[in-house]
Amino acid sequence: MREVHVELGDRAYRVVVTRGFEGLDDALAEVTGGRPPVVVSDDNVAPLYLSAVRQAVGEVHQEIVLPAGEAHKGWAALQQIVDGCLRAGVDRRSTVLALGGGVVGDVAGLAAALVLRGIRVVQVPTTLLAMVDSSVGGKTAINHAVGKNLVGAFHQPSLVWANLDTLHTLEPIERVAGMGEVVKTALVGDVELLDVLEGDRVEARLDEVVARCVATKASVVARDEREGGIRAWLNAGHTVAHGLETALGHGRMPHGVAVAHGLVAETRWAAAEGLCTDPGLPARLDALVRGLGVPQVPADLDHSAAVAAMHLDKKALDDMMVLPVVERAGQMRLCRLPKERLPELLDHLPS
Amino acid sequence: MREVHVELGDRAYRVVVTRGFEGLDDALAEVTGGRPPVVVSDDNVAPLYLSAVRQAVGEVHQEIVLPAGEAHKGWAALQQIVDGCLRAGVDRRSTVLALGGGVVGDVAGLAAALVLRGIRVVQVPTTLLAMVDSSVGGKTAINHAVGKNLVGAFHQPSLVWANLDTLHTLEPIERVAGMGEVVKTALVGDVELLDVLEGDRVEARLDEVVARCVATKASVVARDEREGGIRAWLNAGHTVAHGLETALGHGRMPHGVAVAHGLVAETRWAAAEGLCTDPGLPARLDALVRGLGVPQVPADLDHSAAVAAMHLDKKALDDMMVLPVVERAGQMRLCRLPKERLPELLDHLPS
Repeated sequence: MREVHVELGDRAYRVVVTRGFEGLDDALAEVTGGRPPVVVSDDNVAPLYLSAVRQAVGEVHQEIVLPAGEAHKGWAALQQIVDGCLRAGVDRRSTVLALGGGVVGDVAGLAAALVLRGIRVVQVPTTLLAMVDSSVGGKTAINHAVGKNLVGAFHQPSLVWANLDTLHTLEPIERVAGMGEVVKTALVGDVELLDVLEGDRVEARLDEVVARCVATKASVVARDEREGGIRAWLNAGHTVAHGLETALGHGRMPHGVAVAHGLVAETRWAAAEGLCTDPGLPARLDALVRGLGVPQVPADLDHSAAVAAMHLDKKALDDMMVLPVVERAGQMRLCRLPKERLPELLDHLPS
Repeated sequence: MREVHVELGDRAYRVVVTRGFEGLDDALAEVTGGRPPVVVSDDNVAPLYLSAVRQAVGEVHQEIVLPAGEAHKGWAALQQIVDGCLRAGVDRRSTVLALGGGVVGDVAGLAAALVLRGIRVVQVPTTLLAMVDSSVGGKTAINHAVGKNLVGAFHQPSLVWANLDTLHTLEPIERVAGMGEVVKTALVGDVELLDVLEGDRVEARLDEVVARCVATKASVVARDEREGGIRAWLNAGHTVAHGLETALGHGRMPHGVAVAHGLVAETRWAAAEGLCTDPGLPARLDALVRGLGVPQVPADLDHSAAVAAMHLDKKALDDMMVLPVVERAGQMRLCRLPKERLPELLDHLPS
């Protein structure tokens, strides 16, 4: 078991990286004072792990099972959770336990932010991507027809419990996608982790890999909770990823896969612009990403649709995009790129 | 023109109590940096004041007009604003200007809290109740079938502009309702204002009355933004009010009218319990409320429905209600009342 503390004053919390659900009951009781949680999951994850969680925590106040998938990350799922909580008679000391991947965590987190103007949420991520990225840091959201994650709130969890055993049932592509965010985190804030990822014992060292990613993210979030500055570094690769995901249609390319491609494209662009001072970095990243088994960008990608989606990114301000640019591994800086130059980023996508 | 500052560190803002919209352009520009706001109003208020606001602020990014009324304070209105903002291409520096009463302010404030995880909101209240209470303090919400304001967020405005001239078009009952919250605010935190309200020059001193209420609320909010303690004092009268409004059906009794009745009932109860140390206070409040022209509680009030609604109040914790109890004018304390004793409060309603 490894533990990471997210230092946010009176909203501080810990992230437990472990195998199994043993000890979840005590960790949860510290947060809830023993009140049974409302458990939110989806119809992929619930059949696999809901009974184990129920058994681990003893008593559950209510169970809410969402339809699985990014396509359901919208108002209907949000309302389903809010309705479920309120009809079950939650009060201000109640806790939502989100059991699942990034979609469940994001929607359940947002619902918890809104019910009675905010009740606690505990994240129990069951995908690699959710463990290393979305479950930590308090960003919650639903998608909107105009773009992904455009409706949301900052609402920190009170506890994150990452049970690595749940990754055994993960689809291989989902694991690859998670590794996309792992590579990003290493690139942005943990150069030694990059070396680990290039080694041949990644699988055996998975608990270390996850804990290191969480530690990097926790450190960034503690310094910039609401993304006024350094937290935007974590958006590396995401400008291009956002364009890819939207142009291909949500769900066709997993988020982490899009991030992996985005990292390569944005780093190549930064090198071509002379902003990246490590000339070997683009090829290094490219090799790392290919080694993960990331599927190629579909040949039928509509570049103009991708550019249009990038224009609507949350990170845009007026006619400029706020772009985290890699100077070298472990060192980013924020640049303002005129929106009309966004197509250049796509030109550097791996072919 | 009177100004009150709400001292909340980097979220501090000012409340301007004035007549007219003159100066709104400059005050708004300080907040927005000159970016045209998205204006949200409803179909009662828009025909009266939208063109005046448009003229005052120069340019408007987008106008969104909601159906008027408490019955529309729900998901549909929230989504209408969120959609309108996102389709209009807002970015993180955009501002929503909420023009209307408490419903518009609450829903537009919540939408602003959620769009891109939070953009600015400027409140331009056009009812007495919104001016003295709901526009200041950052509570935003929509209603839910289970109860009022159960889904929301804390999201402070960046500016509040209370134009007293807009009160000329207010329905008389809405003005009476606003006075219910004025009496509450005086009782809780401004004993001198109670004297003013008992005098015969209330109408002529309305700017002072509004500014004093805002100052009291601002002071309480600055000390307890998220209602961990003293802010709960402002819920005086609201436990009974909540039961009345829900049992009668939302919209049949204006919120401020219900609060006025709630104040009298809760103060009478406190006196009967020996918790209120000023034996003359219940009669004093009763006379003040009657003098406002508050309509009587309907004879067909379903007491058991009111009690059931009170059980589901946000202020409930397990089997206890956290009740702000009047010790004397200007001095409250929070008590825990077992839920089974809630009917006692209703027994003290004025007949």
